[in-house]
Amino acid sequence: MHAIKDAVHDYVEVDGVARDLLDTAAMQRLRHVKQLSTVRLVYPSASHTRFEHSLGVYHLAREALTQLGIDGARADAVRAAALLHDVGHGPYGHQTERIIERRLGRHHDDVHELLETADIAGVLESHGLAPDVIADLIAGRGKLGQLVSGDLDVDRMDYLLRDAHHTGVPYGTVDPGRLVRVLKFVDGTLALEEGNVATAESLLVARALMNATVYRHHVSRIAGSMLERSAERLLDSTDVTPERFARMTDAELLTSLQGCAETTEMATRLAERRLYKRAVWAELEAVPDAVLEADDEAIRAFEGEIAEAADVPARSVIVDCPGRPSMPETDTRVVVSGTVRRLHEQSPLVQGLQAAQRAQWRLGVYAPEADLEGVERATKRVLGLE
Amino acid sequence: MHAIKDAVHDYVEVDGVARDLLDTAAMQRLRHVKQLSTVRLVYPSASHTRFEHSLGVYHLAREALTQLGIDGARADAVRAAALLHDVGHGPYGHQTERIIERRLGRHHDDVHELLETADIAGVLESHGLAPDVIADLIAGRGKLGQLVSGDLDVDRMDYLLRDAHHTGVPYGTVDPGRLVRVLKFVDGTLALEEGNVATAESLLVARALMNATVYRHHVSRIAGSMLERSAERLLDSTDVTPERFARMTDAELLTSLQGCAETTEMATRLAERRLYKRAVWAELEAVPDAVLEADDEAIRAFEGEIAEAADVPARSVIVDCPGRPSMPETDTRVVVSGTVRRLHEQSPLVQGLQAAQRAQWRLGVYAPEADLEGVERATKRVLGLE
Amino acid sequence: MHAIKDAVHDYVEVDGVARDLLDTAAMQRLRHVKQLSTVRLVYPSASHTRFEHSLGVYHLAREALTQLGIDGARADAVRAAALLHDVGHGPYGHQTERIIERRLGRHHDDVHELLETADIAGVLESHGLAPDVIADLIAGRGKLGQLVSGDLDVDRMDYLLRDAHHTGVPYGTVDPGRLVRVLKFVDGTLALEEGNVATAESLLVARALMNATVYRHHVSRIAGSMLERSAERLLDSTDVTPERFARMTDAELLTSLQGCAETTEMATRLAERRLYKRAVWAELEAVPDAVLEADDEAIRAFEGEIAEAADVPARSVIVDCPGRPSMPETDTRVVVSGTVRRLHEQSPLVQGLQAAQRAQWRLGVYAPEADLEGVERATKRVLGLE
Amino acid sequence: MHAIKDAVHDYVEVDGVARDLLDTAAMQRLRHVKQLSTVRLVYPSASHTRFEHSLGVYHLAREALTQLGIDGARADAVRAAALLHDVGHGPYGHQTERIIERRLGRHHDDVHELLETADIAGVLESHGLAPDVIADLIAGRGKLGQLVSGDLDVDRMDYLLRDAHHTGVPYGTVDPGRLVRVLKFVDGTLALEEGNVATAESLLVARALMNATVYRHHVSRIAGSMLERSAERLLDSTDVTPERFARMTDAELLTSLQGCAETTEMATRLAERRLYKRAVWAELEAVPDAVLEADDEAIRAFEGEIAEAADVPARSVIVDCPGRPSMPETDTRVVVSGTVRRLHEQSPLVQGLQAAQRAQWRLGVYAPEADLEGVERATKRVLGLE
Repeated sequence: MHAIKDAVHDYVEVDGVARDLLDTAAMQRLRHVKQLSTVRLVYPSASHTRFEHSLGVYHLAREALTQLGIDGARADAVRAAALLHDVGHGPYGHQTERIIERRLGRHHDDVHELLETADIAGVLESHGLAPDVIADLIAGRGKLGQLVSGDLDVDRMDYLLRDAHHTGVPYGTVDPGRLVRVLKFVDGTLALEEGNVATAESLLVARALMNATVYRHHVSRIAGSMLERSAERLLDSTDVTPERFARMTDAELLTSLQGCAETTEMATRLAERRLYKRAVWAELEAVPDAVLEADDEAIRAFEGEIAEAADVPARSVIVDCPGRPSMPETDTRVVVSGTVRRLHEQSPLVQGLQAAQRAQWRLGVYAPEADLEGVERATKRVLGLE
Repeated sequence: MHAIKDAVHDYVEVDGVARDLLDTAAMQRLRHVKQLSTVRLVYPSASHTRFEHSLGVYHLAREALTQLGIDGARADAVRAAALLHDVGHGPYGHQTERIIERRLGRHHDDVHELLETADIAGVLESHGLAPDVIADLIAGRGKLGQLVSGDLDVDRMDYLLRDAHHTGVPYGTVDPGRLVRVLKFVDGTLALEEGNVATAESLLVARALMNATVYRHHVSRIAGSMLERSAERLLDSTDVTPERFARMTDAELLTSLQGCAETTEMATRLAERRLYKRAVWAELEAVPDAVLEADDEAIRAFEGEIAEAADVPARSVIVDCPGRPSMPETDTRVVVSGTVRRLHEQSPLVQGLQAAQRAQWRLGVYAPEADLEGVERATKRVLGLE
Repeated sequence: MHAIKDAVHDYVEVDGVARDLLDTAAMQRLRHVKQLSTVRLVYPSASHTRFEHSLGVYHLAREALTQLGIDGARADAVRAAALLHDVGHGPYGHQTERIIERRLGRHHDDVHELLETADIAGVLESHGLAPDVIADLIAGRGKLGQLVSGDLDVDRMDYLLRDAHHTGVPYGTVDPGRLVRVLKFVDGTLALEEGNVATAESLLVARALMNATVYRHHVSRIAGSMLERSAERLLDSTDVTPERFARMTDAELLTSLQGCAETTEMATRLAERRLYKRAVWAELEAVPDAVLEADDEAIRAFEGEIAEAADVPARSVIVDCPGRPSMPETDTRVVVSGTVRRLHEQSPLVQGLQAAQRAQWRLGVYAPEADLEGVERATKRVLGLE
Repeated sequence: MHAIKDAVHDYVEVDGVARDLLDTAAMQRLRHVKQLSTVRLVYPSASHTRFEHSLGVYHLAREALTQLGIDGARADAVRAAALLHDVGHGPYGHQTERIIERRLGRHHDDVHELLETADIAGVLESHGLAPDVIADLIAGRGKLGQLVSGDLDVDRMDYLLRDAHHTGVPYGTVDPGRLVRVLKFVDGTLALEEGNVATAESLLVARALMNATVYRHHVSRIAGSMLERSAERLLDSTDVTPERFARMTDAELLTSLQGCAETTEMATRLAERRLYKRAVWAELEAVPDAVLEADDEAIRAFEGEIAEAADVPARSVIVDCPGRPSMPETDTRVVVSGTVRRLHEQSPLVQGLQAAQRAQWRLGVYAPEADLEGVERATKRVLGLE
């Protein structure tokens, strides 16, 4: 038995297939991909990586399996999937996932191809596990896939807790010790045992407060948007392939951006934290449907129009329009008076949180400090904001 | 400068009037009154006292005053009030406050008389402070009284944090460092600065989750009800005066209960944690208005009727009917787009939390294990529960 | 499976014999005996009890047994012993143990008689465990007794950690997750695996720093001495039997002291924290052997002489002479280069810590503030201090 | 007032010169230099940066200045120096400092030249501060320089605490709240007030335990040595200047190593954690003086000889010989009985810690797994190990 010290879960016991997977290049790469991409420009302590998060998810999966009484090869498969669940992430994690989806046509948790690569496939097979089965679990398929990716998955439990620990923000109201103890399968569906409505609510609440305070902090969104635009430009103006791009580390992406004439200025701005500012920060009600439903191409077109109207270079305008707010945890199953119910049927808090999320939603338009006024005026006209 | 080590705030600097107040018998008595009365029968680590909580409230008041730029005699008065804010509590704190209100006709935060006693009044006056002024602040009167007792008081910030620390429950989502930094007075009203809707929500959320998980845990409610009934009986059947009762420590009350023939059995049950169980645990909708609005006397009459119908001794039935749910923090003021608004006008989360609180509300009827069935049947008939 | 939330170990799983033992009066009594007796007069947050500590020791025993691969009835016995290890403590724990030893002739961890009492014996026997076997384990006898009471016992791991958590002092340098993982039996002796000299040292270091900062703080020693003297007087001047005394809770002792004419003044001083002060605080080198080796009776005689010489009442002088410093952990076994060695043979740090402990040692003589000068002069003469 | 959330100190208030310094490129670069270089290959959570550490040191300096009653321009200077104290570090901090010393002839805390650069000098001068004065403080010169770099500096307090937080190792026995409260100047020398021998010891103890468990973990030392050798080779075989090298970030160094034919293999080994192993791990007594006193050139020569004797390529052998153990904190001043004394005169623990440090010292010789046996034999012969 081999145990790794973790700042969140204390000791993580690593054995069997997990121990061998840790040594693969794909897992070691996650040491170089930060968990919260640009958040550390706001919360300087938040430099933690997807590697330590992956260990944490593996640890919680292990505990949940023990509590559920699942062992043998099925448990091995879930543990492997938990450890590998983030290997599909590109550099800076979620920040580049839309680029990768557009250019490679695959979502970050579609890792079927990746798990076929020599070293991972080799390790899995040497432990009697089929790469395809693991990839399906990571995509949340099947009964046990719910543990890895679903409303009550151990991924969420770990990241809320870990992000709170590393940012210092006390809003990670998650009690994993309780959560893993009250999980149960009811007719193949993962649910929380009787008496745990508040336990289920605590997960939603944690995410709502972390969203407002950490994940969607405007400084982090600005830096993230600058990064994303630069990455697009890098792919457009160099011979970096999307395949190569998707396997970069954070540092490799930054270095590439610095080395490319088209993106070097933006890269230096990011490295030295000289960020764009908010020209516009609009509430959901103020944004026309045409903007809300615009795809990436349309957003790019809006940016061009705004830049022209404001008489600034195209790259001086970034339109950051998040999707309509969603809250998947509201489907969480809880046993109430002997029946499995969805949380939103049971908890009036859910509606409140959904409304709060809509109230927090903002469309951002960012520009260099000198251009703010012009861009603000132009944006209002071009996008038709109220 | 003298500093006291505290498990929550690290060091609490105690000087001036605070240092002298600490040495009074009334403050030292709070070392012997637990903060969470019977909660420790569920969460064994929760043995903390109103003394350490009072130090914490004093500490946060000190920080808030510094941030607000308030100093001199006015600040001295607020610090004294913060330290003294709980001296009016009877044994087991909130658990006996209704008894004291009924018998002495005063609320636990009406401490005008108490602050006139020799040693406290002496200390206050030697520092140029009038006992009456301090008592008014403790009751939440005046502009600065809002800091001591109001929607945004430092009392709430400390207890949510401290109770989470000592129970081990991770739901004390409170960031006092942020809260004291974003307080401001707007036209005499205490409010949170622009950009702090989520900060205000976090206080509500913390209380909602702590209510469900800690403060209103059924085991604690059962033990609390047993304690309250016994205390009533003690006052009815001995020469202990309400005045003497109100100044007891937890231990003095327990010992008195053990020494009185009428209450000794209940006292031993409490000491050995052989508690009554739930015969009935009814939701708000199931409870008729007549029961919801019953005063203490009417409740006592219901208990008698139920006992008779179930053919058990009177003391074997306890009806525990909390007041209708309320949530005072929803009035918290936050600056939004330059205007002071009440939180419930601004945050859709508030409505959700209020509804959740109603959903969590329960009427409890408790009885010894052997009598549960009979008491359940009798209760339903007598109270007309659906 | 039933789990109890603990502020230190998160969840403690309680099942089998442990669950039934928890409900006995002897275990529930530990809810009313504080872990650190008078320390909370210095560190106000330190109100934790021997009940939560017992749960913690049980939890670590459970983990250690799992890691050591011990199960079945032998493991049940160790778990029961871990949970029960402190039931023999009198009120205020260590503070009254010398009194109990003198009057009842038994040490607090000699619980053979206690475990024969009806409810504990009943529970143990219903789980096939012999009370005698459990009592032997608590006394540290036999191979597995080393886990419960020995150089590397789980008792020490829990209290260092727990006392640090509750005082807020950051000196509980204990890593129980590592310790339980590196325990092993070598020829029947409990030892730490190869590579763990620093792990063993960390336990010593924690105790040395906690001694200096917490356990032997002079204010706590003064209050403790006042309590001990009063307890003696109570036994001498009332019909409280030593047997009854040994089973009191903290509160029952305090109430008894308050109710007895001989001790009521001291009890009020303790309740209101109006403590004696140090008249003398002497280093080890300054104290003659005759004083160091004095038994309780001789110390009492010294007190009388000093009081007479200082012309103050007998009860105004307390001589507090701790035994010569010892440090049992220095015998801890560690595997080094394949051989089991005692820590003091291996670690030069041990000698340093022993010397530091001697340097920290103090003889205290305490008296009311008004009498300090006279008592100081008289003490120096009577005890022959340099 | 602007406050930054920190996972260790909660809120760090940043104003005046500090706020402007934060925006300089030199400070922002520290976001990209990890605090513990290769330690995170052992403790995955330890990804924290010199940027957050610098904020922490600034924060503690601020608190210490307040407690010492120092304000005005002198305090500004100390705060600026605290924030800037690590700007002289090369990539991977201490890991490259010997290279920089050899090639540029300056120590990492000699930053006179660096502070003359345009943006830093500009900020300092706009706040009336002379770059030279700040650079002297960083080098520990003058009375106030002791706060920034000395036996009792705030640098040490922050890193012990922060490294413990981020690794998860509970050995950072540091109480900064107490330390900053008991600092005082006695005749121009920084000392701890009376009664703080244990406080001073706690700093030494923390460093001793962190050394054994974290800072000198063999896996981290191996990776660090591989990094250092590669960096040398990079400078020898490319046109990267030492000046440019010294200003790289961690990522820039890694990318450069990957891009250089001479170092690409080692860089991949580091990125994928395929590290050399220990061929030799020798205690201090076993190592001849000639080896202990060898300078870098001599060590390089030994490596060559060993490689030749073992018939392996030169780069397959790394000799890692730390300097003789030292422990600067033993000179810490503490007031004892009214006199300033050095800790080692006062505390017998110091000697124990020094001896323990010698006992922990190891010479390491590292090689690829396949070459271990040959390299071990060759090393023993070439270095004359016993």
